[in-house]
Amino acid sequence: MLRVLKGSAKNATQPGLGYPMSIAGPLNGILVLDLTRVLAGPFCTMVLGDLGARVIKVEAIGTGDDSRAYGPHINGKSAYFMSVNRGKESIALDLKAPPDRVIFEKLLERADVVIENFRAGTMERLGYGFEALHPRFPKLIYAACSGFGHTGPLRERPAYDMVVQGMGGVMSLTGHPGGPPTRVGTSIGDLTAGLFTAIGINSALYRRTVSGEGMKVDVAMLDCQVAFLENALARYFATGDVPGPLGARHPTIAPFQCFTTKDGYIVIAAGNDQLFHKLCGALGAPELVNDARFLTNAARNKNVAALTEEIEACLKSAPTRDWIARIERAGVPCGPINNVEQVLAEPQIGARNMIVHTEDPVAGEVRMAGNPIKLSAYEDPPQRPHAPDLDEQRAAILCELGL
Amino acid sequence: MLRVLKGSAKNATQPGLGYPMSIAGPLNGILVLDLTRVLAGPFCTMVLGDLGARVIKVEAIGTGDDSRAYGPHINGKSAYFMSVNRGKESIALDLKAPPDRVIFEKLLERADVVIENFRAGTMERLGYGFEALHPRFPKLIYAACSGFGHTGPLRERPAYDMVVQGMGGVMSLTGHPGGPPTRVGTSIGDLTAGLFTAIGINSALYRRTVSGEGMKVDVAMLDCQVAFLENALARYFATGDVPGPLGARHPTIAPFQCFTTKDGYIVIAAGNDQLFHKLCGALGAPELVNDARFLTNAARNKNVAALTEEIEACLKSAPTRDWIARIERAGVPCGPINNVEQVLAEPQIGARNMIVHTEDPVAGEVRMAGNPIKLSAYEDPPQRPHAPDLDEQRAAILCELGL
Repeated sequence: MLRVLKGSAKNATQPGLGYPMSIAGPLNGILVLDLTRVLAGPFCTMVLGDLGARVIKVEAIGTGDDSRAYGPHINGKSAYFMSVNRGKESIALDLKAPPDRVIFEKLLERADVVIENFRAGTMERLGYGFEALHPRFPKLIYAACSGFGHTGPLRERPAYDMVVQGMGGVMSLTGHPGGPPTRVGTSIGDLTAGLFTAIGINSALYRRTVSGEGMKVDVAMLDCQVAFLENALARYFATGDVPGPLGARHPTIAPFQCFTTKDGYIVIAAGNDQLFHKLCGALGAPELVNDARFLTNAARNKNVAALTEEIEACLKSAPTRDWIARIERAGVPCGPINNVEQVLAEPQIGARNMIVHTEDPVAGEVRMAGNPIKLSAYEDPPQRPHAPDLDEQRAAILCELGL
Repeated sequence: MLRVLKGSAKNATQPGLGYPMSIAGPLNGILVLDLTRVLAGPFCTMVLGDLGARVIKVEAIGTGDDSRAYGPHINGKSAYFMSVNRGKESIALDLKAPPDRVIFEKLLERADVVIENFRAGTMERLGYGFEALHPRFPKLIYAACSGFGHTGPLRERPAYDMVVQGMGGVMSLTGHPGGPPTRVGTSIGDLTAGLFTAIGINSALYRRTVSGEGMKVDVAMLDCQVAFLENALARYFATGDVPGPLGARHPTIAPFQCFTTKDGYIVIAAGNDQLFHKLCGALGAPELVNDARFLTNAARNKNVAALTEEIEACLKSAPTRDWIARIERAGVPCGPINNVEQVLAEPQIGARNMIVHTEDPVAGEVRMAGNPIKLSAYEDPPQRPHAPDLDEQRAAILCELGL
């Protein structure tokens, strides 16, 4: 940690105050008031917390963050909730009740960032929209992470991950041709919005060091899905052809797909001619290099069915593990299709500290994904502070505010 | 734009210099040297450019960024390349040739950020690893965005998107039970790494305003896939059960899935009891509210097959469009499964300026996804500067460097 500031860095040196220990990181000294629930917002503030920000969850009285109720539970604490709320503090407030509004406004005075993922208009009705807050707290950065954003005809409509996965196009690209609709197996509608919001907040924090002023960051989950369409959108605009699902291969590069081996599957990604030539060598099929059907990426992509047949004819002679060793030795990107248990067994995941744990007072040791942003100036501790119970830090926060 | 600084902001006021116009944004004044190719890195620097950074692509002589060769092309320019390189400048350099190393080092003197997505060790062999650069350029932020990161046993191994999709677990969660492996239809291996890298860079820029020093940001595509496993990982750690693919439904919330209607599909996401009760009303099936099988989310999730049958029995009476209107009126998140063409026809996408265009001197008007980070302090222009030809800004950059 470079120096001690207000917010988390200070508390990190005063564990007696009852706060979870904060992480040393570039956002030490930044205080985030987090009104968000479930996933997009909490994922964003987890990323900020992993970078050293102090995050105070301001939760609804009684139930708190909806995801506290999502199973499975460990000794009554939601595994889902714990996995995206590590190291945060919690205070339960009724933002319609005058005494709690006093507390919230005292927190706003000290905060660098306030973030919410209500529907557009909710904060305005509470008197806490950006237009109301900015004149009172000009340095405050206001981040909204909603389904459809704070402008446009759908701004007041609710959304969840799967709605924006469907509306935003990614489901039309995922799955097998002619098959049923397929959801991306992880909530990319939420998670990508959380990341774009974190980028907006960080860039606004940087700008504030120049301008002295905060700003509003308005991120919509649906917009983020459009930003993630990448080459499907480029292809559509270039050709007018509406892209469909492609199973387990890349739309414009070949061979860049999943293949069948003697005992399962292998992913091979030969992104250019040299890699294709190396692959042919590793497969023991050097004749494919000069096969007219496979001379260029364009030709390979056009003849991908024939190419797949030729490659699988080779691959069926040995199991996945052997082929990975052989193809890797040739320098061609390849790998297995791991399930979650197999991912965790990859030595690289351990070496990168990508599974961390908390010591929860109720649930015991809880493991979860680590922080993928590795920074030379900071440690990347394997143990993280635990996720809070609802209202857990109330007394300490009120004491700190002099209330 | 708040004020004129070095880098893009200056050039924005001096279009005569031959640079593309930069975007006004929080990173005005920041100069990014971009050694990256194809997708993860270029997507990261596009995000930085959209936030106002000046991005200079340092490309390999002759071929440049590999993605310049990826089809389809418009008048010889890759639609894929153009869609992730808007507004960047290009200079082609041979980093092994002494005269070009002089140019590169002069650029490093002025740069705030250098970013590369080579395999670990490549920059060290060129003499440009972080350890070599940091003493010479202590304020420089060094970002590496690689397949497996700069530590661990796989650090020198190449990777592409599909390899990390397979290894990182998301493919094991995507698709239908018993069906073939399914790739997520967009390159989330690259794109998520690009976003995490952008977050790391922005947080390091903020920290530098406090510490005066740069740092190294090391992001691995595989790590980012682990960070995106969210509830699959939480469930596995809590229960020991290895999660599999679930088709088009959420693993722990019901009803939160795709349903069949009279003429197609609809996504309905009723994330809590109140929403489920509203849904039952909209479906004309209020008796489901008190059905013992569906009283709680846990019960609904357990009896999801029966629940799906009951709901689809209602939905088969009318087409998707009618049901969306009815279910939306009831306040329950729902939506269609749009293909790319239908996404673009959503009025919300237009209202949010999520499709922007460039005027390319060769390819003409090219449309592409806009910036999902909407900031109150800046315009969000519908026209963006075009993607550069290889080496397009060489003369202007050399002139600026006094060479």
